[in-house]
Parts: sequence; C-alpha cells; structure tokens
Amino acid sequence: MSFSTTTPVIAIHGGAGTLSRASISAEQQAAYRAALDEILRSAQAMLAGGAPAIDVVTEAVRQLEECPLFNAGRGAVYTADGRHELDACVMRGSDLAAGAVAGVRTLRNPILAARAVMEAGGPVLLIGPGAEQFAAECGCETVAPEWFDTPHRLAQLHAMQASDRIALDHDAASHDAPTVPAPLDERDKFGTVGAVALDAHGHLAAATSTGGMTNKRPGRVGDSPLVGAGCYANDRTVAVSCTGVGEAFMRGLAAYDVSALVEYVGLPLRFAARRVVMDKLPPLGGRGGLIAVDARGNVALPFNTEGMYRGWARVGEAPVSAIYADEAGPEQ
Amino acid sequence: MSFSTTTPVIAIHGGAGTLSRASISAEQQAAYRAALDEILRSAQAMLAGGAPAIDVVTEAVRQLEECPLFNAGRGAVYTADGRHELDACVMRGSDLAAGAVAGVRTLRNPILAARAVMEAGGPVLLIGPGAEQFAAECGCETVAPEWFDTPHRLAQLHAMQASDRIALDHDAASHDAPTVPAPLDERDKFGTVGAVALDAHGHLAAATSTGGMTNKRPGRVGDSPLVGAGCYANDRTVAVSCTGVGEAFMRGLAAYDVSALVEYVGLPLRFAARRVVMDKLPPLGGRGGLIAVDARGNVALPFNTEGMYRGWARVGEAPVSAIYADEAGPEQ
Repeated sequence: MSFSTTTPVIAIHGGAGTLSRASISAEQQAAYRAALDEILRSAQAMLAGGAPAIDVVTEAVRQLEECPLFNAGRGAVYTADGRHELDACVMRGSDLAAGAVAGVRTLRNPILAARAVMEAGGPVLLIGPGAEQFAAECGCETVAPEWFDTPHRLAQLHAMQASDRIALDHDAASHDAPTVPAPLDERDKFGTVGAVALDAHGHLAAATSTGGMTNKRPGRVGDSPLVGAGCYANDRTVAVSCTGVGEAFMRGLAAYDVSALVEYVGLPLRFAARRVVMDKLPPLGGRGGLIAVDARGNVALPFNTEGMYRGWARVGEAPVSAIYADEAGPEQ
Repeated sequence: MSFSTTTPVIAIHGGAGTLSRASISAEQQAAYRAALDEILRSAQAMLAGGAPAIDVVTEAVRQLEECPLFNAGRGAVYTADGRHELDACVMRGSDLAAGAVAGVRTLRNPILAARAVMEAGGPVLLIGPGAEQFAAECGCETVAPEWFDTPHRLAQLHAMQASDRIALDHDAASHDAPTVPAPLDERDKFGTVGAVALDAHGHLAAATSTGGMTNKRPGRVGDSPLVGAGCYANDRTVAVSCTGVGEAFMRGLAAYDVSALVEYVGLPLRFAARRVVMDKLPPLGGRGGLIAVDARGNVALPFNTEGMYRGWARVGEAPVSAIYADEAGPEQ
C-alpha cells in the first residue's frame, strides 16, 4: 500500500538481522515492541505539535540510544579491545545541513554531538578525541567510558571471541554461544538505530547512531556516521536511515542511492528503496535494511534479512511496530 | 573535445584554488608543472606495461604524497594544534572494493595504508590509532609525526592563526600575510591530491589523499577519505577524485553523483562532471573541482575556482599539465 498524504510521519529502526533460534516468549517480544512504540508515540506528539523533523529524529534517536535493548549509546556493543566506539549522523533535508561524529567514547548521546556539529555549521564530520572535545565545549553530556558497559553486551563479546569471529564474519549454523534471548539473534544482528521524519512544514530529516559491530577492530567506522551511506535527507527527494553490513552500504552509497533513484530515474519511493536493498546491496554482501520517507509522506522499510526492529507512526493514527518479515507494514 | 578510445589514460590533480597575488616567476610555475609531468610519465609507463588501474592510481598518489609542493603526505598542512592529520581513500572499479584511513599521523604514505585496508577485505574505513596500528601490521612504513613538518606549511599556519581564520573561512581581499610564492594562493587553496585511471584491461580506479585544511579543528575529516564524496570508482560508470571545500563535497556526494548522473540520467561524462562542479556544488559552498575518467577513456577535469593543479596522459601521447582555467584541456 502507498500513502500520498502530507500528514507528518515518523519511522524508526533498531537494527536488522536473522531470527533468534532461542525460544522467545511473547513477553520478550513485547519488550522490544513496547520500546519502539514508546519512542514512536513521543515522536508523534512532537510532530503533532509542529516540531521540525530535524528535532524529531534527533530526539527519537536519543531515546533509542538511551534504551539498552538497542546497539547505540548505552547498550552499545564492544570492540575487540573491550571498549565502545560510537558513531552518529544527522541530516536536515531543507538545506542539506549535516553533522556527524565517529569513534567517540565519552559522549552519552552521540546523536546530540552530531547535532551540535551540524548546528555549528563548520566541519560535517569530527572523529575521536577532537569530536569529544568539541561536543563537550558545546555542552553535550560526557560520561566515563564505563557508562556504556552492559553485562549482556560483554557476554556477547566473550562469546564472539571464544569462537574467534566478528559479528560480520559469521556462519549462522555454527552459532552456539549462549546470549540473552531477543527476537533477532544478537550474534547475527546489525545493530544500528535510526529515524526519519516528515514534519508538518513539509521538511524531511534523518538520523542514525550505532555502537558498531561486536568484536570489531578498533578504529573501524561503518556507514552510520557517513552522509549518503547510512544517513541522508533531502526535501526534494527522501530521508533515509540504514542498518546492515556497513561496508556494503558505504561502497553502495545506499542512502544517497535511494535519493538518486527517486530524483534521476523518477522511481516511486517504494521501488527505489527496494531496488537498493534487494538488488544493489546483496552483491556487495549488503545484508540489512533501511527506513525511508519522502516529501509526500510515503514510507518504505525494506530489509533483506529475516527481521528488522522497526516502526512508524502518522499523526492521528496508531503507531505500528514490527520485527519479522511476515508482519504487515507499508512498502516492505 | 571528447575521447572515445579505450587507450589507457591517467589523470591527476594537486588541489584547486584562487590565483596567487604574489608575483610568480616562470620558474616557479615550471616547478609545479614538472612535478605533475614526472608523475604522469611514471603512471603512463605503468599503464603502457599493462599495470592495473588500481596500482597506477595508488602509485601516482604515493608520489604526490612524497612531493612537498602538494598538501598530502610530506608537505601536508597543519591543524589548529600544530599537528598533521592525514586522510586517504582508494577504490577499484571492477568490484567496488575500497579502503580508507582518516586522522592518521604516523603513516608515511596514507594512500598505501588505504590500499592495505582495501586488500584486507574487511573494514573499509579505519580511523586514528586503530588505522595506524593496522597499517603498521600490514607493513606500511611508519614515521615520527615530525616527518611531515615543512617550514612553509608552518609559516602558513602561523599566518592563518595571526589572522584568526581557517583556510575555508577566508576573505581573499583581506589576505596580507606573506607565504611561499606558488601559482595558486596557498592561503586560499583546497589541498588534496588525487588520481583516476583507465587501464588496458578496461578497469577504472580512483585514489585521493589530503592533509586537510590549514588550521582545521583536530578531528575534522573532509571528503577525501569517504567513498562517494571525494573518491569513487565503478567500471560501469566513472572513476572520480575531488578537491575542494570538503563539507560541500560530502553533503553533495560529489564523486558518486557524477556516477549517478552517468548511470541513471545517461549524461556523457563531461556534462555529468560539469553539472556537479558548476551547478550542484556551488549552492552548498562547494568551491573546488574534480578529475574523472569513464570506461571509454573520456576525461573531464572541471573546477569552479581560478585554477587547479592538474594533468592527464594517454598511453602514446605526450602528458599535459595545467594550472589555470584558461589553459587548454579536455572537458573542462
């Protein structure tokens, strides 16, 4: 189905991956849906009140960062050396303003640091200690690196290291380490969070944040903080936030490619988004998905994995959240 | 004029900017042209011998990094805190493989580190100490940070700081600090180096390397190391290397946009390259230029500044180098 109204709308994601082989109770699934629904309702209220899309996606991703269920902010996965390196990006469709940080370890909410970078109007991407210093100067909250530690993520690192693999370098059939039950397999999930929105003024925005991949090499940066790879917004075309095997999304310029297919080929959003996710990314090893909204309020949430934590909400309608591929939803 | 042969071809650039107001002697101009010509001849010989494009662009950029006239490798500009932070990216058109490093301080040739990242086949982008450690493990030469120090770049930093500006935040009319005579104004030049090539096997490749901007904030990363922003190669379309105001090239996905205009709109290379440089980048503040070659051997080297250090060479023809806008050249 397709939506061609300009009713404000928010869509969010919390990562894509394969189904968990653990026995998942209805309560465990419900915890993920409830987290998504709560954030959707909050964003919906902001949109109903006339908030700009850039504020709505920033706040939605901040809330996703604060939720330990998702791999961003608190709850982020561990690098190979047992630390956290966080990346985030935000982009405003009205003027293509963007801000991003990568490889930060002491900023409680990387998305707020990315926003501060954007607002300053100078550099678009700051990395490492330079990014942390800038964000602190802008008033972003700093925390000790240990603030991001969570027992279930540390257990994931140890399980991954015991089997000598990183999250990308897996073979689903050989996974045998225990983990916390979750609807999507935490050992084979591409953990990123993101939000896209169309506001009442007709403006688009996108935001993406991630803790990267469990057991990743220190210094590795994926698509999440990169304009056009994991995050893109342009009022003339679309707002997109991606989740998946970052390297493929970078090489394929996944987020901008959706925009280019809309702008240059004239594809409707659903076809542009599906072409990128189903046709163009898989040959590059690009397992994952994306969420997208266009200036007319069409929403697409395609993914080529077994599931993606996702949801969307239009002003005046009940929020919808979903995890598995066989669940109803727009444009999947 | 247009070329539609598949004769192997190399194109290189050494940055774009405004004309120097200093009195430039014929000898001083000749030094820049001689440096470009020497690198072109070397690349031409490699191409004539059947070398893959990826090897040719890597080697051409390594030589540009080694030349202190250009802002990459030795000869790189200084950050606001008096250090060097180097970025580089390489991409192979046959399989869209890519590798990049950002914010490295101890690698003699960042482009070789980027190549090592690409060859390893895992992460595409490594930053900071993690990138340095990986490159060292791969056998890339490390140097003390002081190795990149050059007196003329330090003088540029001091002049810039005395006038409290960064290279991007300038007003040409108010520049009055002395600098080393060069054909393009070193206080208003976007220092990047790059190479694109089509080899005898029909494959494309691109490479870009930079020292960033004089007096830049520590941690700032521009377009150079980002796939699709400052560097892109795809055998089906084009190979592109950019130089200019990095933030605009990132927000505009300049390199990939040339490819998208060729692939999706069907524009000939020269029109696609000009549309990006002359129409799409300026509204974003995107002063600079790019070099591009397509799979049929067409070459384009458009820039929207007063000059760009550039050159190209086909196998079997004399290399051509140029600096100013009024000089002859293909597809400008």
